[in-house]
Amino acid sequence: MNSRISARDRDPVFAIPLTLPAAGSGQLTGTLHRQLRAAIIDGRLAAGTAMPSSRKAADALGIARNTAVAIYDLLIAEGYLLPRKGARPVVADIAMRHPRARAAPKGAATQLRKQIVAPTWQSPSAAPHAPQPLPPRSFRLGVPEHRHFPHEIWRRLNARAWRRWSKHPFDHPPIEGIPPLREAIAHHVAFARAVACTGDDVMVTSGAQQAFDLLARLLVTPAVTRVAVEDPGYEPLRRAFQAAGARLVPVPVDDEGLRVDLLPTDVRVICASPSHQSPTGVALSMSRRAALLAHARMHDAVVIEDDYDGEFRYSSRPLDALQTLDRDARVFYVGTFSKSMFPAMNAGFVVSPSWARDALLAVKRVTETHSAGPLQEALAEFIREGHLARHIRKMTATYAERREALLEGLHVDLHRWLEAIPSIAGIHLAAKIDAGANLRAVVDAMHRHLPGAEVVPGDSTRPGAPSIVAMGFGVIDVEDIRPAIRRVSMMLSRNQPDGR
Amino acid sequence: MNSRISARDRDPVFAIPLTLPAAGSGQLTGTLHRQLRAAIIDGRLAAGTAMPSSRKAADALGIARNTAVAIYDLLIAEGYLLPRKGARPVVADIAMRHPRARAAPKGAATQLRKQIVAPTWQSPSAAPHAPQPLPPRSFRLGVPEHRHFPHEIWRRLNARAWRRWSKHPFDHPPIEGIPPLREAIAHHVAFARAVACTGDDVMVTSGAQQAFDLLARLLVTPAVTRVAVEDPGYEPLRRAFQAAGARLVPVPVDDEGLRVDLLPTDVRVICASPSHQSPTGVALSMSRRAALLAHARMHDAVVIEDDYDGEFRYSSRPLDALQTLDRDARVFYVGTFSKSMFPAMNAGFVVSPSWARDALLAVKRVTETHSAGPLQEALAEFIREGHLARHIRKMTATYAERREALLEGLHVDLHRWLEAIPSIAGIHLAAKIDAGANLRAVVDAMHRHLPGAEVVPGDSTRPGAPSIVAMGFGVIDVEDIRPAIRRVSMMLSRNQPDGR
Repeated sequence: MNSRISARDRDPVFAIPLTLPAAGSGQLTGTLHRQLRAAIIDGRLAAGTAMPSSRKAADALGIARNTAVAIYDLLIAEGYLLPRKGARPVVADIAMRHPRARAAPKGAATQLRKQIVAPTWQSPSAAPHAPQPLPPRSFRLGVPEHRHFPHEIWRRLNARAWRRWSKHPFDHPPIEGIPPLREAIAHHVAFARAVACTGDDVMVTSGAQQAFDLLARLLVTPAVTRVAVEDPGYEPLRRAFQAAGARLVPVPVDDEGLRVDLLPTDVRVICASPSHQSPTGVALSMSRRAALLAHARMHDAVVIEDDYDGEFRYSSRPLDALQTLDRDARVFYVGTFSKSMFPAMNAGFVVSPSWARDALLAVKRVTETHSAGPLQEALAEFIREGHLARHIRKMTATYAERREALLEGLHVDLHRWLEAIPSIAGIHLAAKIDAGANLRAVVDAMHRHLPGAEVVPGDSTRPGAPSIVAMGFGVIDVEDIRPAIRRVSMMLSRNQPDGR
Repeated sequence: MNSRISARDRDPVFAIPLTLPAAGSGQLTGTLHRQLRAAIIDGRLAAGTAMPSSRKAADALGIARNTAVAIYDLLIAEGYLLPRKGARPVVADIAMRHPRARAAPKGAATQLRKQIVAPTWQSPSAAPHAPQPLPPRSFRLGVPEHRHFPHEIWRRLNARAWRRWSKHPFDHPPIEGIPPLREAIAHHVAFARAVACTGDDVMVTSGAQQAFDLLARLLVTPAVTRVAVEDPGYEPLRRAFQAAGARLVPVPVDDEGLRVDLLPTDVRVICASPSHQSPTGVALSMSRRAALLAHARMHDAVVIEDDYDGEFRYSSRPLDALQTLDRDARVFYVGTFSKSMFPAMNAGFVVSPSWARDALLAVKRVTETHSAGPLQEALAEFIREGHLARHIRKMTATYAERREALLEGLHVDLHRWLEAIPSIAGIHLAAKIDAGANLRAVVDAMHRHLPGAEVVPGDSTRPGAPSIVAMGFGVIDVEDIRPAIRRVSMMLSRNQPDGR
């Protein structure tokens, strides 16, 4: 550690230039908050760095103590700072920069090793998506219901696959996935999502995350390629593109989804989750879908469509997938079975334009030789025999009830603090936190009574943008939803009689 | 396609500068062969490019036709050229460059897409390790015996794991692998290979290939980091480091293994397969192991120890793993269950120094969120209940017989053309092709009578170095080995009565 580093450790805030807005402009909190967040995101404030006490920061910046407190609260609520009992908050690892980006230009191994152990690396505990100790039934995101899964059927198919497999000589399954599974997936997405493809267009991956990583490695020229990502958006996808050296361009999301009109013309890759945006849950409107594809065509970009839980739809008229509307072979469609089946399946897939197929295969060959064969066979049968479609149909009904209860609770009990964001699919709902509400109070109430719910910044490009609460209903029972919501409402009312 | 490209298509050889040695130096074949191979390896001769006919090449270079033929034969035998029935041979995809390395600096998507579909990308068929249509029983490399595997036990443990799993709420298994498996692996490598580690040091990966990819992404600064790889060596490992942008430094291998004395002082990463070098099969001598670690210490490099089939040992005094000898936390030990169990398991692991643990985890988080949970549980039980150790013991005896038969055949029947390379472990044997032998004849005989056996260049840094034949005995029965060898011997004797 050289002196500059330790100096930063002492007072990180003073190591980065902060510009204060005109006095009385009412922009103070927002401006400082935005600048600090930027410093954390681009790593100028290294993960693990202890922030100065709010008093110290206030003095150093010549601002009111409560302003400093408010800024810290906001950063904590957004997950950019990690609170520590009775200690100064530390910078969370949002940056997640790739070791290459950090490795010493001279490449001396001593350097290299220092780089590798640099605190910017997230530790398992500090990981954004590290499993938190949550009660089994909670509002956590991205985890589907295990109670109604046809376990016996799955076990039977799995056992059968291993038995059949044991009769044949050992071999390496093909890197792109076994043909029966690729066929089955092609039929499934054609049927469930009107995605036009054949088995040849399908590559099986280790979950959606591997798909993102492979696509990033395929499409990104480090420090050159600009990649548009939704803001707010799915952090692990950003991480994959950041690691590949992409220049990320956050593009805001409103009630119609991605603000296509704000897409820069020089982005070569556009990442979108049109059926159920993560985390806001909004669906990309039909006109925006057309506009997005038109933009991609005009400016020669490719689109990565993340349809992570688009199978659960609650609208009579589902919107077509971008891949379905694409006439120009620009869309990579990414799907996963982690939500429609279970996370431990760890199976996902990419439907790619034929022009990219071999290249994608070559990239996968670099990172992995194949995925476990018999498991693929069992999955193929599960889909082919119609169990997946049946399960999705059944779960859509179950999730729909929970969703209704949650929506009702938001409207009836929490309308003073939260405004539900319209959505038509998925296994979570999001709501905007009223700009006037006491963010910290809302966050506390959520953490207390809606375990697993997450508060995320609404739009990192607009300081004033309301924060968002995302609530999953994959592992909460319908009868437990309203009571939990009421407890939140009671706690907030006590704390803010006027709703403010 | 611009004119330059098409010009190259017409006559690739003339697009690259070839230097002819002094007339009568006897170096002609070797020199031209080395230069052409270099051009293929670094991609100046793009994959898929059709070579000119040997006559045309001979005329253009002013060399004898049979010299051109000899060079083509050598490149074909080594896999750098792909022969085509009645057509000119085409350049195989050895280069395997990463799209980034190829992407247009301007990054225009049109460019980008052209780059992506550039022919340098290997198609599934052209893939070095694509499954060839081989008879079930053959001399193919890297595939273990399925007949003696305890399938019933495995199926029972697998079924039990899924049953137990079905009782619990769905969740994402930890990225680094489930604790019971990491513990079990730690005990296994401690017992089987005297590798000193705890479960905390173990990360579960999707086979050894993912381990190589993660380590490459962790340790390589693109275009900066120099990485020493064995020559000849394991192509998929090279591919992972090439894709990460490493500057590969091929280091020759002799009968004591890696030529540590030839290691440059500026390599930051040294890749070695000490127990059973791939493909020569030699074991790194004790003195070389000490020297390798000393070199790493003195020049501050890290070592990646690939112990891909070190469990099958035929010597009374096994050599310690580098990780065991390492006192300096420089060695990453990579293992796999693809050989000791079966390839479809697709499970491998890295034992890493504690200083790199979190960083490695962060890299894995980028590329994958976890590996299938219940499968990990079944594997953990398989190891913990001693089935793996028992299976390895049993198979070591079985493989030893096959190995003996193969060695005897080489000594008795093929000594005129082949010289067995000493080894003490693994499930394949390698032999040097006598410099005087007719390489093409040997290759033909191998392909005819030892299906699956592979011919690889002995040392790409020395043109004169003898080529090597690698013969697997994972899926060939002991009684079939000698007869096959005799057929090779008979064919070669007919073709070269004097053994030349």
